Amino acid sequence: MFKFVIVKLVVFLCISCASHTEQHKVNIHNRLLTLDAHLDTPALLVRPDFDIMQEHSHDHDFSQVDWPRMEKGGLDGGFWVIYTPQGPLNADAYKSNRDTALLRAMAIQTMVSVNPDTFELATVAEDAHRITNIGKKVVYISMENAYPLGEDLSLLTTFYKLGLRMLGPVHFKNNQFGDSSTDPQGSIWGGLSPLGKQLVAEANRLGIVLDGSHGHDLLLEDLINLSKTPVILSHTGTKTIYDHPRNIDDTLLKKLADSGGVIHVNAYSAYLTKLPNNPERQKAYQDLFEKFGRNWSTFDTETWQALKQARYQLDKKHPAIKASFEDYMQHFLHILNVVGPKHVGVGADWDGGGGVVEMMDISTLPLITERLLNEGYSEQDLADIWSNNVLRLLKQAKDYADSVN
Amino acid sequence: MFKFVIVKLVVFLCISCASHTEQHKVNIHNRLLTLDAHLDTPALLVRPDFDIMQEHSHDHDFSQVDWPRMEKGGLDGGFWVIYTPQGPLNADAYKSNRDTALLRAMAIQTMVSVNPDTFELATVAEDAHRITNIGKKVVYISMENAYPLGEDLSLLTTFYKLGLRMLGPVHFKNNQFGDSSTDPQGSIWGGLSPLGKQLVAEANRLGIVLDGSHGHDLLLEDLINLSKTPVILSHTGTKTIYDHPRNIDDTLLKKLADSGGVIHVNAYSAYLTKLPNNPERQKAYQDLFEKFGRNWSTFDTETWQALKQARYQLDKKHPAIKASFEDYMQHFLHILNVVGPKHVGVGADWDGGGGVVEMMDISTLPLITERLLNEGYSEQDLADIWSNNVLRLLKQAKDYADSVN
Repeated sequence: MFKFVIVKLVVFLCISCASHTEQHKVNIHNRLLTLDAHLDTPALLVRPDFDIMQEHSHDHDFSQVDWPRMEKGGLDGGFWVIYTPQGPLNADAYKSNRDTALLRAMAIQTMVSVNPDTFELATVAEDAHRITNIGKKVVYISMENAYPLGEDLSLLTTFYKLGLRMLGPVHFKNNQFGDSSTDPQGSIWGGLSPLGKQLVAEANRLGIVLDGSHGHDLLLEDLINLSKTPVILSHTGTKTIYDHPRNIDDTLLKKLADSGGVIHVNAYSAYLTKLPNNPERQKAYQDLFEKFGRNWSTFDTETWQALKQARYQLDKKHPAIKASFEDYMQHFLHILNVVGPKHVGVGADWDGGGGVVEMMDISTLPLITERLLNEGYSEQDLADIWSNNVLRLLKQAKDYADSVN
Repeated sequence: MFKFVIVKLVVFLCISCASHTEQHKVNIHNRLLTLDAHLDTPALLVRPDFDIMQEHSHDHDFSQVDWPRMEKGGLDGGFWVIYTPQGPLNADAYKSNRDTALLRAMAIQTMVSVNPDTFELATVAEDAHRITNIGKKVVYISMENAYPLGEDLSLLTTFYKLGLRMLGPVHFKNNQFGDSSTDPQGSIWGGLSPLGKQLVAEANRLGIVLDGSHGHDLLLEDLINLSKTPVILSHTGTKTIYDHPRNIDDTLLKKLADSGGVIHVNAYSAYLTKLPNNPERQKAYQDLFEKFGRNWSTFDTETWQALKQARYQLDKKHPAIKASFEDYMQHFLHILNVVGPKHVGVGADWDGGGGVVEMMDISTLPLITERLLNEGYSEQDLADIWSNNVLRLLKQAKDYADSVN
């Protein structure tokens, strides 16, 4: 930590850094290996109207990631998420969600298989540089919400075989593995459940990085204490800037970093700052969902087009109120100040609700690099933030697994 | 049945049928919709050295199906098999094989995804004609050996979602679902086990055709008695021509047909006729497998190439002894004589051990059509044999599922 403070002081005194031209900053961004730790885009891959190879516009279809925009925004890849929403805790629901998760994993694999010159599945840390060096995008697979594993931990091996290398035990609500940060009930397990502790051991045994995002503070503490390798927060902010259960305080942040962990800063507006209420928009959305229903997985292309068009009109009439890029950077800079650039990364929750006014999709990602360079962070710091840190965790997870298997 | 006998008599008396030229017969073959009920090729899809789009030669790499040879042999598609060999009956083995089966299903789906202009996944009877009409090959998915479902019948839904539409409960040995025709122990369940009976009900509920191939006679009887829709034998022969446990007698054959079922005739040489022993070859193969091991799923391309080369040399030195095309046709013609062309199809066990001297891969499939035309079967009979019959079963299975869901 001391070393970091000294480096920062030197950088602040170094006027040459301030003289980076805009183009120079973009060049730096483009030569970095850039990974986002939480890409929710696989939820779009299973939609009949979405083509990852075509450029979309957030204004028109609310999507935030595709190959053309990855090229524009200089994003080399990241962790592509198998997400299932929290449902009831019973055998039938577990099995149904297991199937959904398997099909989602398959959708990610299919995206790679049908675009073999564009994407490549990555499973070890070394893959990232190798894949970007041959001009392809990096596809690690992660899971947000371990719920679809049910009570059958052997399914973690199944998903590992399908490429899974990062796992978050919970989402919005408490589940069989532990406590969520946002369940109205509060903590019921005191962090991880007994099954959740077994899940941690199994993830360690396989070499899967544990992700505390969405976890209750007590769950994150349990992860840090129990996991044999450092923990990630793939998309989380700081309570110091905005006190929200999805953010963590500086004490826990330091504990995470001291244990070798990394926090990837979330750009989910409602977690960045207090936003004004928007009752007309809320009402309009409620009406929209009543009209279309929420059984989205059964929608055909035409229904999707109609829904998108309706959402587009709704957005024009009742615009979303978003946090600003500055709000996002306040989280980013505070976290950097507390733990330094060896423990920070980017996880903006793209296609999962992330985005701020000036950065509503990945095409504007160079803004982050530019701003951090302006703040005096070095290209090496940026290299750590944009990928070295998460790759370090991935390597540590694998090294541990190799040592015990 | 009477109608069939009369039609056959008329055909025999019709001299014009005998005047079909060779080219005319090939033309008939090419305009038929041709499906093989049991393509074991997916076992090759997971090998790093196999490319379904390239033409291979059985002499050199022992493969029997690929797209160029489908074109040559006029094969429009069939049921592509998820096969796992029978292993121990315990939870760990079930889970490991569940994963293997899931990955195999994914390999089939991937074959389709990466070749969208060549293959298409088929799930209902109507798909077959639609897909062939647009010049693509038909990919139905089946499972040989329900063993990887373990004791968790909900996995049948998982595989159904992955496209599964045909299911054989057992393979070489008795398992949790019932008795095999070739287990040295003989029948231990008296046919289907209690879990096997639940499996039948679940397959019916989903609309999956039940396949009695490899099943003990008692299991086939159970399937016929319990299944709500007609049963298939996807690759089986007749005991009347060669008395082997993998073949069935005429009584059971008639029972199958009377219940609306269909038998697809197997071309696995050792089940077609008594073959002489070949101890030198057996010894040579034993040595080969000792040298290479049997952990094939871990072989890289080079090891596969070396193994293929070694097998090629072995085959030249100790040629395989195969049944003849005539042996195959004796089974085919006897079965046709007993149950008629509405209850017979082709399931030659390609890439699963099938093949006879004159027909060692699918490129020679027109031989079957030609021979049956010579025997006096009509183009309509051939259309039934080559696809209508199995598609009828598929439709019946779906109609039943629709009626109860």
